Amino acid sequence: MPVEIIRTVREMQKRSGLIRTQGRRIGLVPTMGYLHEGHLSLVRLARKHADVVVVSIYVNPAQFGPGEDLDKYPRDLERDEALLDRENADIIFCPSDSDMYPVGYASYVNVEGVTGTLCGASRPRHFRGVTTICTKLFHAVNPHFAVFGQKDYQQSLVIRRMVLDLNMDLDIVVAPIVRESDGLAMSSRNVYLSGEERRDALLLNQALRMAEERIKKGERNAVNLIGAMHDLIAAGRHTKIDYISIKDPDTLEDLEHIQDRALIALAVFAGETRLIDNVIMTV
Amino acid sequence: MPVEIIRTVREMQKRSGLIRTQGRRIGLVPTMGYLHEGHLSLVRLARKHADVVVVSIYVNPAQFGPGEDLDKYPRDLERDEALLDRENADIIFCPSDSDMYPVGYASYVNVEGVTGTLCGASRPRHFRGVTTICTKLFHAVNPHFAVFGQKDYQQSLVIRRMVLDLNMDLDIVVAPIVRESDGLAMSSRNVYLSGEERRDALLLNQALRMAEERIKKGERNAVNLIGAMHDLIAAGRHTKIDYISIKDPDTLEDLEHIQDRALIALAVFAGETRLIDNVIMTV
Repeated sequence: MPVEIIRTVREMQKRSGLIRTQGRRIGLVPTMGYLHEGHLSLVRLARKHADVVVVSIYVNPAQFGPGEDLDKYPRDLERDEALLDRENADIIFCPSDSDMYPVGYASYVNVEGVTGTLCGASRPRHFRGVTTICTKLFHAVNPHFAVFGQKDYQQSLVIRRMVLDLNMDLDIVVAPIVRESDGLAMSSRNVYLSGEERRDALLLNQALRMAEERIKKGERNAVNLIGAMHDLIAAGRHTKIDYISIKDPDTLEDLEHIQDRALIALAVFAGETRLIDNVIMTV
Repeated sequence: MPVEIIRTVREMQKRSGLIRTQGRRIGLVPTMGYLHEGHLSLVRLARKHADVVVVSIYVNPAQFGPGEDLDKYPRDLERDEALLDRENADIIFCPSDSDMYPVGYASYVNVEGVTGTLCGASRPRHFRGVTTICTKLFHAVNPHFAVFGQKDYQQSLVIRRMVLDLNMDLDIVVAPIVRESDGLAMSSRNVYLSGEERRDALLLNQALRMAEERIKKGERNAVNLIGAMHDLIAAGRHTKIDYISIKDPDTLEDLEHIQDRALIALAVFAGETRLIDNVIMTV
């Protein structure tokens, strides 16, 4: 069966109700489209555990800040459709802006606490947009589980918090980061990079690998590690560091000393393009 | 069958899933307990349209402001249970605080716009608490429809907005205000009133009836009507006016001139007790 496209919330809800009546399990992969191997790895994971795999494709205005790349964000539904066909996805849910944000729209879901740091500090309304759209997608698709990528680690934490707090009846599955062969974390935004920026972008992963090595060799001091990563990345001609942080992976509180689990997360501009990457270490 | 009590979100969700698998229709009446005829009228309405009637009883801390009556809010589950038994309700859902607000709780649903006026202006975080708890109750009970009372007119408007905006897949039904024989709108808070305050409290309904009469006789000027209601209510020895407003019933924008539909809404303290009442007029 070729992948089917559903374009309205109402139709998606009807279909989802029918699927549930049949006792079949729905897995959702929420995306903004322009799919790459990272997304497809999430689809494959969903395929393993669901009877019906729904991939939502919606470039959500509410999670872009003023001056961010909403307008130029890459879109290609035909290409996405072909890719999802090959992965045996069942349904593409791609609602319209007017269906998602009707006239007079005024409702937002906000998670406090874990949204105040890292990407939430750099992008003030970003997570409010993410939690709101995920709530809407969950209500439209009514999945048994939804799959998110670890590249957006903070996002996955925020969504887990929201699901727990608001009694949403679904499981959140987080899948590992998928990288290009040279180590760059896959992202739809990588298409923005020039050749030189693309080379500098490798510094993100290199810095994470360096920190990982040093921790394995016994370094426990976060300031030292961050300093070394900073120096490595700042040496790039096109890089501008937004943040490099070492955090408790559950609370996102800064760690001074690494003793158990640590999230090493960074956001760096390569030229105009903001890239993020992270690793979770257990010592 | 006597009404059954379910005390955890998890158990409620399991039950609700089972009921839906059987193709049966669930109606929810969200309450804070200490039920009166007003609540029971909502239960009867739900009974007419649902196979399974769930009444939630939960005094939600998040919708009380500092200095409000959270601690003294009346509670009597045994009495509520007996009343609901008589109405053939099926399930009382009464979760615990720790189940509803687990450690680290951080997620809120907020509706902008229509929450900025009337009770939202007097009680700054009230509606955030209401929309958040309703979201949680909807996720726990997963009803086909939920019934609210018109006494909390603004609340019903806010919840309709939220349901539409967030793609919640349920219907919101609003039921008429139920009054004591002397016209006082029923409220769990009426038990707070002393004899003299109880007499003064009648001024709320009297003012609404007066405004209604004057509109029927041709008065269209909102300032005149509000002035007359103000004088009537302010004459009470124990009354203190919070607001008297004439609004567009859909947008809650102030009306200067009544020409189509009008919401006349008021909030008045009788002693320490804050009472609300309203009427919707069509001219």
